[in-house]
Amino acid sequence: MSDTNSLDALIQALRRLPGVGMKSAQRIAFHLLQHDRPAAQQLSQALAQACAQVRHCQRCYTFTEGEVCATCMDATRDASRLCVVETPADQAAMERTAAFRGLYFVLMGRLSPLDGVGPRDIGVQKLLERAGDGVVQEVILATSFTAEGEATAHAIAEALRRRGMHVTRLARGVPVGSELEYVDLGTIAHALADRR
Amino acid sequence: MSDTNSLDALIQALRRLPGVGMKSAQRIAFHLLQHDRPAAQQLSQALAQACAQVRHCQRCYTFTEGEVCATCMDATRDASRLCVVETPADQAAMERTAAFRGLYFVLMGRLSPLDGVGPRDIGVQKLLERAGDGVVQEVILATSFTAEGEATAHAIAEALRRRGMHVTRLARGVPVGSELEYVDLGTIAHALADRR
Ligand SMILES: [Zn+2]
Ligand SMILES: [Zn+2]
Repeated sequence: MSDTNSLDALIQALRRLPGVGMKSAQRIAFHLLQHDRPAAQQLSQALAQACAQVRHCQRCYTFTEGEVCATCMDATRDASRLCVVETPADQAAMERTAAFRGLYFVLMGRLSPLDGVGPRDIGVQKLLERAGDGVVQEVILATSFTAEGEATAHAIAEALRRRGMHVTRLARGVPVGSELEYVDLGTIAHALADRR
Repeated sequence: MSDTNSLDALIQALRRLPGVGMKSAQRIAFHLLQHDRPAAQQLSQALAQACAQVRHCQRCYTFTEGEVCATCMDATRDASRLCVVETPADQAAMERTAAFRGLYFVLMGRLSPLDGVGPRDIGVQKLLERAGDGVVQEVILATSFTAEGEATAHAIAEALRRRGMHVTRLARGVPVGSELEYVDLGTIAHALADRR
């Protein structure tokens, strides 16, 4: 209908969200406009605010609002160990184990040749620079134990070892085929202790 | 983390969307901020625009940006027949059959006592006023053939008949237990022809 341009535009914008199809977009738009306009306005502002404020940490590449994130600025952490994860959610899972007190590097993705995601599309080059700061003694690869996560770990390990870095990988206690953020804490903690 | 307030606020706002849990909210926020900030900005603007522009048609109660929607203003339609549907999506499904040339009333919901949705929460009173305009000769109830949709149709039919209106219901050719917007066009068209 020609007199519902704003509604149509909202449905189209919702469809760009991952996992939201046409029916879901219609239902979300109906719910927001009919039952919860405060939620719509809250989301509108949160999106604009996040786009304006959220950037990448200059040291670990995760999302932050400052130049350097709080974890990287924490002087009590062991700067000689650098744990490489795919996403902030994976970092949060690792943190919940309380088994690691070093620092992180967040790739913000993983290699996925079939989807056209190569080393330049994730933070591999930034990782090589970060790991070469002269303080890092060990890089612990905690990418997912999926085919893509393993390929990512393999590529990073090769590049780091060529530079003489000591590289380890979480032990295979992590169930093969699973994504780190869904793994129970004990399994992650054991895998960290058994890293090879 | 204390330096990701904007990100945390975005995740909380996304969680208020129907069908979006914590993991989905995190994944959507990550996707938007890492891969598609234009989509985030488009959605932010579409939400604000829709909240500002979209209101209810004064005649049929559906979403519109004017006082009266395009369908209600269409002088070529048969104003003696009024079809009552639950949602704009249901109206759109009815329109796609091309079997109905009358006007609509959109309840924007249905009775749901268990959820605390009573006649005042949907547009029943507005419907009674609309149907009593002296032009409407027949009210066709096209609410869903679910328990809640049937209860809604029953309550509306009683109220309209008390006012001397001629009330019909889509024939039960519509599969019981289904929602109108998912029904195939031919079934809807037959149910319309067999209304009782
Ligand atoms: Zn950092
Ligand atoms: Zn209207």
